[in-house]
Amino acid sequence: MALDGNAIVGQSGGPTAVINASLAGVIEEAKRHSEIKEIYGAINGVEGILEENIADLRAESDDMIRLLPTTPSAALGSCRKKLASEDFARLLEIFKAHNIRYWFYIGGNDSADTSHQVGRLAEEAGWEMRVIGIPKTVDNDLAYTDHCPGYGSVARFNALATRDAGRDTAAMHTVDTVKIVETMGRNAGWITAATALARDQAGDPPHLICLPERAFDAERFLADAKREVAKGHGCVLAVCEGLRDESGEPLVSFKHAIGTDAFGHKQLGGVGDYLVNLIAEELGIKARFDKAGTIQRSFGLAQSEVDVAEAKMVGKAAVRRACEGVTDKMITLERVSQDPYRCDTGLASLDAVANAERPVPDEFITAEGNDVTSAFIDYARPLIGGPLPPYARLRLSPAAKTT
Amino acid sequence: MALDGNAIVGQSGGPTAVINASLAGVIEEAKRHSEIKEIYGAINGVEGILEENIADLRAESDDMIRLLPTTPSAALGSCRKKLASEDFARLLEIFKAHNIRYWFYIGGNDSADTSHQVGRLAEEAGWEMRVIGIPKTVDNDLAYTDHCPGYGSVARFNALATRDAGRDTAAMHTVDTVKIVETMGRNAGWITAATALARDQAGDPPHLICLPERAFDAERFLADAKREVAKGHGCVLAVCEGLRDESGEPLVSFKHAIGTDAFGHKQLGGVGDYLVNLIAEELGIKARFDKAGTIQRSFGLAQSEVDVAEAKMVGKAAVRRACEGVTDKMITLERVSQDPYRCDTGLASLDAVANAERPVPDEFITAEGNDVTSAFIDYARPLIGGPLPPYARLRLSPAAKTT
Repeated sequence: MALDGNAIVGQSGGPTAVINASLAGVIEEAKRHSEIKEIYGAINGVEGILEENIADLRAESDDMIRLLPTTPSAALGSCRKKLASEDFARLLEIFKAHNIRYWFYIGGNDSADTSHQVGRLAEEAGWEMRVIGIPKTVDNDLAYTDHCPGYGSVARFNALATRDAGRDTAAMHTVDTVKIVETMGRNAGWITAATALARDQAGDPPHLICLPERAFDAERFLADAKREVAKGHGCVLAVCEGLRDESGEPLVSFKHAIGTDAFGHKQLGGVGDYLVNLIAEELGIKARFDKAGTIQRSFGLAQSEVDVAEAKMVGKAAVRRACEGVTDKMITLERVSQDPYRCDTGLASLDAVANAERPVPDEFITAEGNDVTSAFIDYARPLIGGPLPPYARLRLSPAAKTT
Repeated sequence: MALDGNAIVGQSGGPTAVINASLAGVIEEAKRHSEIKEIYGAINGVEGILEENIADLRAESDDMIRLLPTTPSAALGSCRKKLASEDFARLLEIFKAHNIRYWFYIGGNDSADTSHQVGRLAEEAGWEMRVIGIPKTVDNDLAYTDHCPGYGSVARFNALATRDAGRDTAAMHTVDTVKIVETMGRNAGWITAATALARDQAGDPPHLICLPERAFDAERFLADAKREVAKGHGCVLAVCEGLRDESGEPLVSFKHAIGTDAFGHKQLGGVGDYLVNLIAEELGIKARFDKAGTIQRSFGLAQSEVDVAEAKMVGKAAVRRACEGVTDKMITLERVSQDPYRCDTGLASLDAVANAERPVPDEFITAEGNDVTSAFIDYARPLIGGPLPPYARLRLSPAAKTT
């Protein structure tokens, strides 16, 4: 069963706050398996392999490996490269030249697709190799896994940011009545949904949650916003950058021709600005928008401890499974207990994961389509790690009126 | 000397992450002075006083007061109200009805102006009252004080966010070459300058810093950006929302007629989007922008411990000074030692502080105008509290090339 040879690990797609925890997991576990000789790091994913830009990860100090899990954003560099047919011969050449027998690729569905193709290529060429995908995406839209490493931390950031934006807006409600919090999320609203974790009591922000799983209805949105504004507490609207109208068109598409990535995904942006304008024009109310952008996926300070631990766990599991002979699979997370929360790892076929997307399911969205259900809260709460730090809530008992 | 009566404390202008530390300082210190009877909180600043919307702060539990310093964004609510002449008679009526003899107003230069007018009003009416301003502004643009409570925390947030945005951009430099980090700052570039605190080594982001103290020169900016992009490490540009061109016009002015506040300040926005477009059109390079917006001023997790302590210190000093007989002053911070860093409190005339602005001085800006000097770093470093958490820096020694 033991397959002697070298291992290569790469990181692909948008970075997360915990993507290096998975890298650390791979490195630590690989060192424990004598059949794995060299541990190579692909610089900028498959781009680095094709250019033979490969790092020797056994040369890294233990101190640096220990710091990796709390260091956000792909330490090896990432990429969005889609392999062209002419790349395959070159890949095989590199595998043979470096005796690469283990392939660990940390990424989302596009990366699962890449890994699956690599595995098929090696098999066709008769090159024995174990290919394992390691899940990673802040979008949380991979199928066949309870959730994706990276999501818990972006969720924690947005819960914190929305709570604080809510306090800011409440404090300034006589000036800025509406705050739009624009979150990431291309086609799935998981990140936007997580803003609901900011709430501690009824009435807490966010007051509306707009997910791309529901077509944007301007009339409904304005009526909702108007009602919340009338409550006089400062209105916080959490919206996904990927919102689309009834006809499936993004609310605002990116203006530049170069605004698509190698997989043809359209670069989205501008929803916050669009809605600020809509509210000003239709309701005559001043709104502002906050768009943390990539800060939300890379903010080290907002790491979820659960997310860090699970990201490391899937990295270790990938190596363990590969050494057991598993190939062409992605490691998954399986929730085995809700209270206390605990996940184990499982396996899914890379082919099945590749290019599949998992939107927020109906049972996590309210009937009105402008909020999440308690079932979503139960699902997501454990993923952000511990509770948010407590804040003071003053009673503000009125002093007696005298005039 | 002892003036028996009640005290009122209010919060005004844009909230900060530590504005409640000043409130806690006022409450704690006021409880130690027997001449201060009731401690009132003005709900939404002077707006609350005019509407007799006043809270009894002695009724708050000790637990809540203890949580205040780590709770961001004005717990009493804030405002941007400019007092109209007809408001003064009403204010005086409230002061007399509630026997208010102590006025503590936590705010910036507009608030200092309000406090100064209130003091003059009381004096003219023969109503003995001690009026003290407590400095607060993330913009750090108050004159006569070394720095402003609130700045250290927004500086820490932006140092952290820029470091993380830098890691994100470096990881994705083969995809997204340029990242614009848009910070707050209406007329002064202090917040943008603080992104320089993200750096640990030469070459670290941000790679350019654009302050409103220097007119925006598109040609120069594009040449700088092009040079940084060519280095192939992912280019991070920190820009101030208040950038203006040679003729003093904002790069993008807000589109709505309602986009000015009560003091006539123009609501700015859109610099990030403007520059993304400029870079795409002129250099043909894909850029993205992050605009944390009000999240940066209210993000509790990024509080600077030094900022929290100083915000509380100025609140306590205000009460102590008022009880000593001081009036018509704002508490200032005076740096008495740089190493180890230490500030004491001082006093400045409210009238002098009111409506004055302190831009980033020339000695803090490089000759080229696209970065800050080491003198600025020395000034700002202590304000953000402890060092940023350490991150792993892998050596990434190349594996031997074999093909």
